[in-house]
Parts: sequence; structure tokens; C-alpha cells
Amino acid sequence: MFLVKQAEEVEARMKRIAATKGVIGTLVVNPDGVPLRSTLDQSMTLQYAGQLQNLVALARSTVRDIDPQNDLSALRVRAKNYEIIVVTGDYLMITIQKLPE
Amino acid sequence: MFLVKQAEEVEARMKRIAATKGVIGTLVVNPDGVPLRSTLDQSMTLQYAGQLQNLVALARSTVRDIDPQNDLSALRVRAKNYEIIVVTGDYLMITIQKLPE
Repeated sequence: MFLVKQAEEVEARMKRIAATKGVIGTLVVNPDGVPLRSTLDQSMTLQYAGQLQNLVALARSTVRDIDPQNDLSALRVRAKNYEIIVVTGDYLMITIQKLPE
Repeated sequence: MFLVKQAEEVEARMKRIAATKGVIGTLVVNPDGVPLRSTLDQSMTLQYAGQLQNLVALARSTVRDIDPQNDLSALRVRAKNYEIIVVTGDYLMITIQKLPE
């Protein structure tokens, strides 16, 4: 039952984020980089999942090299017209959001 | 004269950022990862400069792989109790800021 409840929470959270103004897409990726849920098409989903898994791993080692007791909680990658927000935890919660013009 | 003016601008900007509440340190790193200015001690400066140069390079390639016309403008790495903010440009402007308790 616990897993079903967790999956429902993820689903509800994704829907709320996806409905936010400017959000282009959201995806949930497991610790192995496998996408579990996504509002993007398959090729974009795989591209984001793969790239961001490497970036999160490097960001996490950056934080831990500086302070082994610490851990990465979020990462924001801002390009010219959009931002990728990654929240870490049991899985990666990724949101791609357009920046206001 | 142009370079002197630019250096003065960097200096003034660093002072403003360093004076902001919660800021632990600021550093300026050139495109080769060489620290030009820093309010941190030497070992922390070299550690941050090296680590973040790699992270910025990977973040930049993530953005460009998805859209070659785009570029990275900023990166935020959030740990449990502090955040590293990197603004890209001719050089990397790095700020380490404590998170409110």
C-alpha cells in the first residue's frame, strides 16, 4: 500500500507543477536515471533524464567534497529563456520552466 | 583603461555581494578556472574554483545538447544549509550563501 500511496503523491505533485504557468514539462527519474513519469515526449525525456543524472551526480560530489556531512538538495540550471529545476530525494523531480520574457 | 574599469566594476560588485546578509564568500574565476579574486582562504578558493569549473562545463553542455543556440546563464547548487550561486559571463561570479534557518 505504501508504494501505491507514494506513487499517487508523485502523480498529484506532478499535476500541480505541470499546471503552473510557464512550466514546459516535468519528469520523475529514479536513482538509476530511469524516467518513471514524464509529460515530455520520449526522446526529450530520455535526453533530460540522462544529462541531468550526470549533472546531479557531479553536483552532489561537489557538495560532499567540500563537506562530507552535507548533501545536495536542489539544482537549478538557468539558460537564456528557460530554467531546469531538479529537486533530489528518493527520486529526481525535474521541472523545466520558461523564464518570463 | 577598459580593463582597469572592468576590474573596478568586478571589485565593486564583489564588495556589494560580500556585504549581503548570509553571504559566506564570493570569488571570481576566469574561463580557465583560475581564481582572480576571492574572499575565501586559498585552499577553499582553489577547491571551489576547480569543482565549479567542471560543473559549469557539464551544465553548459547539458543546455547546448538540448538547444545548440542556447547557453548557460546561471547555476544554483543547493545543499542542506547553504547555496552556491554561479553567474556565467566573461568570467564566473560565484557566491556562497547560508540558507535561512
